[in-house]
Parts: sequence; structure tokens; C-alpha cells
Amino acid sequence: MKKQRYFIEFAYDGTAYHGWQKQPEAITVQQVLEEGLSKILRTPIIVMGAGRTDAGVHATQMFAHFDADIDMDLEQLVYRLNRWLPKDIAIFEIKPVTEKAHARFHATHRSYEYRFNLRPDPFKNRTTYILYRLPDVDRMQQAAEILLDYKDFECFSRSNTDVKTFICDVNEARFEQQGYELVFHITANRFLRNMVRAIVGTLLEIGYGKREVNDMHDIINSKDRNKAGASAPAQGLYLTQVLYPENIWAHE
Amino acid sequence: MKKQRYFIEFAYDGTAYHGWQKQPEAITVQQVLEEGLSKILRTPIIVMGAGRTDAGVHATQMFAHFDADIDMDLEQLVYRLNRWLPKDIAIFEIKPVTEKAHARFHATHRSYEYRFNLRPDPFKNRTTYILYRLPDVDRMQQAAEILLDYKDFECFSRSNTDVKTFICDVNEARFEQQGYELVFHITANRFLRNMVRAIVGTLLEIGYGKREVNDMHDIINSKDRNKAGASAPAQGLYLTQVLYPENIWAHE
Repeated sequence: MKKQRYFIEFAYDGTAYHGWQKQPEAITVQQVLEEGLSKILRTPIIVMGAGRTDAGVHATQMFAHFDADIDMDLEQLVYRLNRWLPKDIAIFEIKPVTEKAHARFHATHRSYEYRFNLRPDPFKNRTTYILYRLPDVDRMQQAAEILLDYKDFECFSRSNTDVKTFICDVNEARFEQQGYELVFHITANRFLRNMVRAIVGTLLEIGYGKREVNDMHDIINSKDRNKAGASAPAQGLYLTQVLYPENIWAHE
Repeated sequence: MKKQRYFIEFAYDGTAYHGWQKQPEAITVQQVLEEGLSKILRTPIIVMGAGRTDAGVHATQMFAHFDADIDMDLEQLVYRLNRWLPKDIAIFEIKPVTEKAHARFHATHRSYEYRFNLRPDPFKNRTTYILYRLPDVDRMQQAAEILLDYKDFECFSRSNTDVKTFICDVNEARFEQQGYELVFHITANRFLRNMVRAIVGTLLEIGYGKREVNDMHDIINSKDRNKAGASAPAQGLYLTQVLYPENIWAHE
């Protein structure tokens, strides 16, 4: 019997994991998710994620695809998977998709949030980055807007990377204050490895007056990672949304 | 030299603690806070809390008072205390108050929230109560409003209690949906031990159709804890606000 392709929508607190992608000697979200699915479906399952998140990075919405011959109600599968999985991974939905729908290649937009806390918060101390001194958010916002004028973000990319191009369509880059949390929202068609943390670290240096707002132009034009700021810590970073075209969803 | 009285405003994730109040053989928030203050101020400090929270209950705003002769900047003290304390307790502010200001006796209103999650959330799995089946929130809201018509809440009080009266002025009791979270807000001048969890447990039984909305009248009139529902788990309960009259704050 031919297998059906499914998308699985989920979230995770990345604190305990060495990122999304399977590694030989470290625990990752992909590995735990595959173990859960394989256990409950009683057959080996391989999942392909929408992208890689680094060690310690979180996701409030992430997708992966897998092929399986599932003979139980999908809501029941979600329920049983949530019961099996550790509590820092939560499954929201499993939906059939068209045969060639691909969680990584068909994603059109990805959104991240970087969450700063402006005072200690006992409920978020591991999942936001606490700032004991308030940066100048207006300067950070001005510098963030400069990102929208560029396409080549090699300056914010990890150097030992195997990508063919550093071109990204960034279409959102803004700060929002939510009570004592300061949230940086960024959306693009794709991101380079370590890109958001390098951007946030650079913006923070601008917010603290260590660099000027307009230095952003020189940094981007340099295409040199050493010209940008230090990466912000992983604990404040969340993948928050992945978008797909409507036509990948199968009609049940 | 005469000591000054201070109020300390703080929050805690109660998951790891056996409640607020000091106990001989279990770790509590009061004990850890006193240890931190005593260590940093290099003298034994006793704190008196605005109220007791039970084991596993959280606080997003709590107050306590203490007397001390502090010879450092209060912001510096807050900073050092946050550095010393475990990350599940966060200090917001330390402010001088009038000589006889009392964190417990002078509190005029206390607010609690009970947080349900309508789907698993990896960031809040220990600090909300997850409902796998949606209760009828309209019924729960109708039953909650009945609370506003009564004063004697003995039916929701722990039986082995030493209070002189079961009279409470409840002036807010309402449900609010925040995304996938269902939040019950309740405010009163005072609460009896275990009262909010007993109320929430009873409302949940009404929401699931195990009891009728109007059973609330009989339960309250019975003054019998056995007539009310089972207590909701501590992990969803937060003390969220304590109010004091303006005249307790000292002018610096």
C-alpha cells in the first residue's frame, strides 16, 4: 500500500536540545520526534523539518513532513504522541498533504522573534534574554529598518556554511514592547545559519551606543561576519511561524 | 540606630517550593528570600508575606515587609539579590514604607488567576493546567458570577483552618480567553486557604456538565467543603496582584 505524506505542526522549548537536526552524539528535537512517531506507529519514521534551529533555540510553530500508512484517527495520534513525548515538545496537528509537499522547500516565509526581558521573570528566565540595562530601542528600530534595503546578508552568516547564496528577502524587521518584554520580529523567505542572532547582537550594540545606526550599511556591504556584532544568546530566539502555499494541503 | 521598614515586591515560579511559608523540613519561598536578604545585608532578616501560597502555587506579584538598616542603594540591593537568588524567584523592587505598614494586614485586595491551557504548550507545561477536552466556558462564567452574590465561603475552605471568619468580599470572578489559554480572574479582600483551587475545581465540574450552574447556590449555602468540587491542581494558580493604601509608602 502506498504511503500518505503528512505535515506535523509542533512547538518546542529548545533549552534541553542540541537544536533540531539529528546528530550522532547529542539529543535533538528531530531525533525525539522520530522516536515518538516510530514507537506509536510501530514502524521507522523519518521526518524532514522546515529548517534547522541551533542548540537552545525554541519554536512556537514548526513543521516537518513524513510518509506513513496511518490506520488511526489523526487526533488520536496527536494525543498519544503528546502523552509519549517529553513535555518540552508539543504536537498541535498532523495533516495529510499532497504527495510531493516538502516542509523545507515549499516554505515561503519564516518568522522569528527574539525576546528580551527588561526585568527578571521567574517564568521566562531560561527562555528570554534578560537585559539589566535598557538599550535605546529607537536606535535599534532605525537600524533594523536598514535591513529591509538589502538582499545579501553574508555579513550575518556563519562562515563555515555550504549555502550557494546569501540572498534573503527580509520583509519584516521591527521591535515591539510587550509589558516588560522587548520583542524583535523578523520575517524572510529564508535565513542563513546564525543570521538572526548575529543581527540581534549587532542591533543591541547599536542600542547600547557602541556603534552608530548607519554603521549597519557598512557592516552589510562588507559581507564580513567579523564586522557584525557578537551573536545574541540562543535562549531568547524563537521560530514563530512557517508559511506554505495553500495547494500543498491534501483534501481529506 | 533605628531600623527602617521596607516592602519587597517579587514574583516566583512555585513549582519547586513547598509554598510561601517557612517549614521545618521543606524548602519554601520565604526561607530562600530570608537567606538571600540576610546574606547580602550581613544580618539576620525576617520577612512577613502578604499571604500564604500553597505548595506549587505561583506569584507574579507578591509583597513582604522587613526591617533593616540598609546602607546601600536599593536598586543595587535588588540587583545583588537577583544575582544571589535562584532564577525561579525574581525581585522587582524594594521600597521604604511607614513604620507600621504591614504586608499582610494592610493589603486591601488580592487577585489570583487560574490558567488553563487548551492545548499542550512546551513553555507552560508546568505552570498551567492543560485541558484535553474543552469545558463549556459560558456555564462556568454563569456559575462564577453567582460567587459575587455571597459573602460566606466556608464551603471552599480547607476544614482544618484556624480562621475566625469565612467572610470574603469577592468583587471579580470572570473567565477570559487569551489565545489557547483560558484564564479565570478572581479578586477579593481576602481568601481562605485552598479557596481558589476549590472554586476552580467546582467551576470545572460545572463546565463539564457534572453539575448544574445553579448547584453553586446549594454548595455555598451548605458551608460544607464536601459539597464543593475537587481542588484544581496548584500548578495553574497564580497570585497576581496585592493592593495597599497609598499612605503606607514612605517619602524618601
